[in-house]
Amino acid sequence: MSPRSLVQASIAALALASALPAAAQFAKPEDAIKYRQSALSVMAAHFGRVGAMVNGRVPFDAAMAQQNAEIATMMSSLPWQGFGAGTEGGKAKPEIWKESAKFKELSDDMNKKMVALNAAAKTGNLDNIKTAFGAVGGSCKTCHDAYRNQ
Amino acid sequence: MSPRSLVQASIAALALASALPAAAQFAKPEDAIKYRQSALSVMAAHFGRVGAMVNGRVPFDAAMAQQNAEIATMMSSLPWQGFGAGTEGGKAKPEIWKESAKFKELSDDMNKKMVALNAAAKTGNLDNIKTAFGAVGGSCKTCHDAYRNQ
Repeated sequence: MSPRSLVQASIAALALASALPAAAQFAKPEDAIKYRQSALSVMAAHFGRVGAMVNGRVPFDAAMAQQNAEIATMMSSLPWQGFGAGTEGGKAKPEIWKESAKFKELSDDMNKKMVALNAAAKTGNLDNIKTAFGAVGGSCKTCHDAYRNQ
Repeated sequence: MSPRSLVQASIAALALASALPAAAQFAKPEDAIKYRQSALSVMAAHFGRVGAMVNGRVPFDAAMAQQNAEIATMMSSLPWQGFGAGTEGGKAKPEIWKESAKFKELSDDMNKKMVALNAAAKTGNLDNIKTAFGAVGGSCKTCHDAYRNQ
């Protein structure tokens, strides 16, 4: 997939997320919780594989970095539809549902930075990837600090 | 994403899955188990939304069917990399690791049928979608009957 088609896929997924109320998407709040945790977990696995190269734990392999960044980017558009009204629970702090504009801003920020990581991975340049990876990591941390129980 | 780019994405993900030994992909067997369960769960959520239209539980919406089939198709290429050597556990029967050629055949079959569902969803014709959905469901069932503990 090109970065453009991934952006399009992200837009499509976000449109999907906002087009239906949570009740229509998930039969029970637990289903939404399981969904968002699963989507974040798959994203984290692929993001983490890029991180292993960034941190020198495994040798840099440009093709692997690209493939994993691509999957992480695709995944990054999905979790948010699992945070609909009435789906409080799991590790998510209740503030998410009180500060939905701020939560959306942070999730959009992460999406954008992940798309940038995907573009960086396509350059095949480890320094570019390191910078973009750090930006995504910072975005994850900001949101987790504010909205995730440890 | 076009069906072609999804097929390419599937091929890329499968190449990724086979290019690295499981040990290099997941630090611990539990990580692989969590990964495959999460990927299957996200796939099932989107496949299930198509199913809700196929079964008449929610009104047919061609755009929703398309978007969900697209995400399910993308997801359908991911779980298999979580079944590497030494990752027995969860609901997976140990036969998976003894009959890896058969397991691969069944997972490939599901991938192919999901790509066909994605193509059917793009036609916007509910009858096409029903037929293709049923084929995927049959493939899920065959594999679960053989390889998943209840």
